[in-house]
Amino acid sequence: MLNKYVAVAEEAAVMAGKLIQVSFYKHKTVEHKGKVDLVTETDKACEKIIFDHLSKAFPTHKLLGEEESSLSGKINAITDEPTWIVDPLDGTTNFVHSFPFVCVSIGLTIGKVPVVGVVYNPILDELYTATKGGGAFLNGQLIMASDQTDIGNALLATEVGTARDVQTVDESTNRINAALFKVRSLRMSGSCAMNLCGVACGRLDIFYEIGFGGPWDVAAGVLIVQEAGGLVFDPSGSPFDIMSHRVCSTNSHLKEAVVDVFRGHC
Amino acid sequence: MLNKYVAVAEEAAVMAGKLIQVSFYKHKTVEHKGKVDLVTETDKACEKIIFDHLSKAFPTHKLLGEEESSLSGKINAITDEPTWIVDPLDGTTNFVHSFPFVCVSIGLTIGKVPVVGVVYNPILDELYTATKGGGAFLNGQLIMASDQTDIGNALLATEVGTARDVQTVDESTNRINAALFKVRSLRMSGSCAMNLCGVACGRLDIFYEIGFGGPWDVAAGVLIVQEAGGLVFDPSGSPFDIMSHRVCSTNSHLKEAVVDVFRGHC
Repeated sequence: MLNKYVAVAEEAAVMAGKLIQVSFYKHKTVEHKGKVDLVTETDKACEKIIFDHLSKAFPTHKLLGEEESSLSGKINAITDEPTWIVDPLDGTTNFVHSFPFVCVSIGLTIGKVPVVGVVYNPILDELYTATKGGGAFLNGQLIMASDQTDIGNALLATEVGTARDVQTVDESTNRINAALFKVRSLRMSGSCAMNLCGVACGRLDIFYEIGFGGPWDVAAGVLIVQEAGGLVFDPSGSPFDIMSHRVCSTNSHLKEAVVDVFRGHC
Repeated sequence: MLNKYVAVAEEAAVMAGKLIQVSFYKHKTVEHKGKVDLVTETDKACEKIIFDHLSKAFPTHKLLGEEESSLSGKINAITDEPTWIVDPLDGTTNFVHSFPFVCVSIGLTIGKVPVVGVVYNPILDELYTATKGGGAFLNGQLIMASDQTDIGNALLATEVGTARDVQTVDESTNRINAALFKVRSLRMSGSCAMNLCGVACGRLDIFYEIGFGGPWDVAAGVLIVQEAGGLVFDPSGSPFDIMSHRVCSTNSHLKEAVVDVFRGHC
């Protein structure tokens, strides 16, 4: 059954991805009143395409989406029922600026456990897929997290989020400062889901983010990382909580070293 | 004559780019003694392809390359003679990790003035070209820097470099901290030349870096930005000096706002 679920999620991701691709290089005027807001329009249209496709195939499954949640102002709790958790357009700021790290993210939980993950970046044409126990794939090729054992050779990704109060920004730059003394270098791509896929395919060795939007940013990516042999946990080292807006991910070797770096910083 | 120069530089960039592409997804073991160092091998082979192609077409021109300079341990001064300034593989760390921001950068100065710039990213298949007075192009399409006038809506890129002494890291994170209170968001792609091209095509609104490798990182990119209507200057606001390892670039509107942010920080 997971094969059927992932196949339908792939179809939905590719359909939404095509819509993102069409709008990607257009000028998106989000600041000027009266003009069409291409960002919101694309986000909404992608969520509708995905929800329609999923609910047609699986009419009894629940649907949880970023766009829908931002309209209602609350995030529905994830129950034990099969629940599709969807970010129709992860990397919204990148989309506004035509910076190529944007993606569709579709995850499925059953009994609150992630069992299917699909992330599609239509600009780089990268389709990441995973089913629980079935491995992780990039465009159909099996992927694995890196085998780097030395944090000094590790490539780290993080994001600075959207909050700009003094405490949040200071904490964020203090973590970056602490990390820079330990790792090889730092990347910020602007997409939480793409960063998780980056760890999954070994492009990145470590990713952490504190304060991202919600469960739709990570629902697919965490399974993709885990199926690629990587680890997902809270930046403090505690178990990962999908509702916490906090995530850290590494290959199978670097968790302890990373938790050491952030001790007292998160 | 500039059209001939840029055409030959394009050929050289695409030839070297093909070699980068072939090695890009291979495992590059730089740490294990005795194994082939694919990074150095690719870097050297690309520089040879580019130098051979340029010197066959223009036997009297001077050549300045990163790989050659790192072997001799010094950077030759740029004279008034036609001088090709070449980075055969910008984004070396990205190449090691298969992170897709890598490129070939080829610039030509005559009378110390940049007159031709070619940057080719073979992974994203993006070929940026410019000739002095002739405009800037991405894959043959005219490009322009963004029209963003509000730094609060600007996407900023920077890099953290390779120095890890306390003073450098603290200064670097203090600049990031200061910038975060002003801009929309921050990206780090790991390639100085690609960041300059990002400002040129409007994907980024601002880029700064202090402490990059040398003139080969910027020789092509600064002309591409300028021909796209963007500005290039020292982060302090003073005129740009290609030998200074310091660069800041914005669209035509944001220079003053950026210099204000970094006052006292660079």
